[in-house]
Amino acid sequence: MKQDWKPGTMIYPLPAVMISCGSDPSEYNILTVSWVGTICSNPPMCYISVRPERFSYPILKKNMEYVINLTTRDMAFATDWCGVVSGKDHCKFEEMKLTPGRASIVRAPLIEESPLCIECRVKEVMRLGSHDMFISEVVNVKADEKYLHPETGAFDMQKADLLTYVHGKYYGMGDLLGFFGWSVKKKK
Amino acid sequence: MKQDWKPGTMIYPLPAVMISCGSDPSEYNILTVSWVGTICSNPPMCYISVRPERFSYPILKKNMEYVINLTTRDMAFATDWCGVVSGKDHCKFEEMKLTPGRASIVRAPLIEESPLCIECRVKEVMRLGSHDMFISEVVNVKADEKYLHPETGAFDMQKADLLTYVHGKYYGMGDLLGFFGWSVKKKK
Repeated sequence: MKQDWKPGTMIYPLPAVMISCGSDPSEYNILTVSWVGTICSNPPMCYISVRPERFSYPILKKNMEYVINLTTRDMAFATDWCGVVSGKDHCKFEEMKLTPGRASIVRAPLIEESPLCIECRVKEVMRLGSHDMFISEVVNVKADEKYLHPETGAFDMQKADLLTYVHGKYYGMGDLLGFFGWSVKKKK
Repeated sequence: MKQDWKPGTMIYPLPAVMISCGSDPSEYNILTVSWVGTICSNPPMCYISVRPERFSYPILKKNMEYVINLTTRDMAFATDWCGVVSGKDHCKFEEMKLTPGRASIVRAPLIEESPLCIECRVKEVMRLGSHDMFISEVVNVKADEKYLHPETGAFDMQKADLLTYVHGKYYGMGDLLGFFGWSVKKKK
């Protein structure tokens, strides 16, 4: 039997990513979000939704660029912390001992400790209510070589052990259940 | 060291959800997507991105309503299958032995086997390129009572064991690493 609930945000599991923004070190900040995702494959486009009250909001609006940094089990504490404290009171890079690195296309810093950093340029900011949606184009991806398969060059997501956010809780990655298309693959 | 890749869609882990659509049984169809997420908390809003070539696309466009059905480990095979075969050639509900159920607000069916069903109404369809983004309002949520805590009524996401999609592979949920805000909680 199913129970009716009032309308709410219940799409999970989601990534917990760190957004790094700012165009010079005095402005650099980190914001954790789960309202993030892919919206188009070609051209590659994504979004993040951010409350206008957040300290990073005017930084994002001014620069119209940011980096999406995927997070891992090892980064769980920093991910949570950067989501609950404000850049108004804290230098998040310093206090979490995270290293701002140089992105290739955007001026926003990336987080060196992240296995995969996605450089984004904002195309449009859409007002929705509590959140504004930053509709963005992916302009570059930087992948940490330590997660690449030595022969195929493929990124090993399971090795990266990405962090997942599920309705107020963080989880590690679970066990592999299948690959895309396995349900129609002919048995040998 | 980080390697530059060409721009691409690399935000993971994402949910693998089944979208059910159609306004009467002859039209009912199921579409699996991972380009799905929350875009606003108040009002609760979400999106799905769908290629115009997909069989469900005109059904979604005509009805401007759909249900997001979260999927579980038990539903992994059906989730993959509904993502690779077309409703043009298959009755997905029948062939996967999934049960179309009545939603409360929208005419689109929900999938009874799903632990959590999110009823959505489309506000705007945005053309982006390969995909159109359906910007939608959440109008109701239906939760399976078997996952509710008997005393608190809270939905047990870990018990539901939601399915995650990570760059071509499906995973189960991993172990609990912390809750939102734990990094700043005072130690007792």
